[in-house]
Amino acid sequence: MTTRRSFFKQAAITAGAAALGPVAANASLLAPSSPVKTLTMGMAGYSFVHFNVDDSIAMMNRLGIQQVTLKDFHLPYDSSQAKVNEIIGRFKQAGIHVYGLGVIYMKTAAEVDRSFEYAKKAGVEMIVGVPSYELLSYTENKVKEYNIKIAIHNHGPEDKLYPGPKDIYDRIKQMDARVGICLDIGHALRAGADPAKAVRDYASRIFDMHIKDVTAPEKDAKAIEVGRGAIDFPALVKALLKINYAGRCSLEFEKDMKDPLPGMAESAGYFRGVVAAAVA
Amino acid sequence: MTTRRSFFKQAAITAGAAALGPVAANASLLAPSSPVKTLTMGMAGYSFVHFNVDDSIAMMNRLGIQQVTLKDFHLPYDSSQAKVNEIIGRFKQAGIHVYGLGVIYMKTAAEVDRSFEYAKKAGVEMIVGVPSYELLSYTENKVKEYNIKIAIHNHGPEDKLYPGPKDIYDRIKQMDARVGICLDIGHALRAGADPAKAVRDYASRIFDMHIKDVTAPEKDAKAIEVGRGAIDFPALVKALLKINYAGRCSLEFEKDMKDPLPGMAESAGYFRGVVAAAVA
Repeated sequence: MTTRRSFFKQAAITAGAAALGPVAANASLLAPSSPVKTLTMGMAGYSFVHFNVDDSIAMMNRLGIQQVTLKDFHLPYDSSQAKVNEIIGRFKQAGIHVYGLGVIYMKTAAEVDRSFEYAKKAGVEMIVGVPSYELLSYTENKVKEYNIKIAIHNHGPEDKLYPGPKDIYDRIKQMDARVGICLDIGHALRAGADPAKAVRDYASRIFDMHIKDVTAPEKDAKAIEVGRGAIDFPALVKALLKINYAGRCSLEFEKDMKDPLPGMAESAGYFRGVVAAAVA
Repeated sequence: MTTRRSFFKQAAITAGAAALGPVAANASLLAPSSPVKTLTMGMAGYSFVHFNVDDSIAMMNRLGIQQVTLKDFHLPYDSSQAKVNEIIGRFKQAGIHVYGLGVIYMKTAAEVDRSFEYAKKAGVEMIVGVPSYELLSYTENKVKEYNIKIAIHNHGPEDKLYPGPKDIYDRIKQMDARVGICLDIGHALRAGADPAKAVRDYASRIFDMHIKDVTAPEKDAKAIEVGRGAIDFPALVKALLKINYAGRCSLEFEKDMKDPLPGMAESAGYFRGVVAAAVA
């Protein structure tokens, strides 16, 4: 199988280069052979709002997903170090890495302080958060102090602060390199942004992804299984592979939230299928 | 979105032609632009061996799959016309088309006769069946008499008659064009056959597909969610698109058979994702 895979991989690379015109096509002939790429799936903890920690872990194990961000309903903000260790430990025991916390809304300096202490206790690499505009500089200083990244989350047309990724990027582009974006592709599309273009345009600042689908590129669109909606996943995956995205593609499934496993499974399967075909 | 999709589609077509060498590449420049291709999913009725008709329909609706073959545990061989109409009608009411019946094992001429009468009552276009070698000619005559196709199913290394697709093809290649193969890709791989190669080699005789995955290309491999196993789905989908396969890709899910919905959903999602990327 390896030989055929390599063959098609080369063909795909050639196609990409050819599409850019003869100069790029020639350049690709001179480039070193690229490593086999892939994308890592994760789960955004909000998907499990109706489930306790054990049930959430059981679902993740069934889905074969081993990276997660936790919401406060699973890991309360004021948890003791012992409690934090206990909760994170249950995920670790099940083979799941808690890589971030959030989404956390931060409207005061005290909430920023609490968030970074909380993330430090949990030993995570990033906070997925929403600091108010006037707290961005204060948050940047905390990022430097704690060496914990912040990935600011866009929440669609209803979001007064960050409807789409550009609303984040324009405010952080001069900041420390550890201040970035959690690109929510469903909310981005509802806000009129093309997720694949956002990935390319803000490449160095995309730290995390919320993977989902929505019924239409419209404000009132509803959540739907990945692949059944309006998002162009082949284009998105191409963009993520093109920027060598090394973060997680975390599924945030918001349909059938009291019986989400079939839809989560279909969504994870679809995304993996698109990736498999893109790297074949 | 249409413009970008068309762009990448063209790039993919170009890549395919380029891989075949300069003559084929030139030929593709002269070819009329190809229609948008896709593949249709279905469900092999055996997947629902532990469920009644209503539960099976509910699962198919949730999966968004609208084509099915029925096993005798849902539609008994000796059903009256009224009973057949009632069962098929429940699927139709739910938006699901019963396109075939089977897998049906046929060891006597009487069993062949019964199968074609059964298929005629149901108004299906094909029987997925396993006639013994000595009944192949008799079966071919029934195909002509009823104008109902037969898709002979390969069942892996344990199958004394048809372990892999070649065991079928070699015996039917001179027969009426309505005698063909239901290519079970999991059993084919366990029998040492490459499913994508089988699709290309026996293109005109592939009437139906049982889509599944297995843990390894070995006799004792186990069923697993599509995409997690040993089958090269990007290669398979390329082959199916290449031959303009117009049949169904029917999922036969044989893991967790008493709680199959999440695995079915993941499998359907993965297959659709591979197809979406292949036609993008």
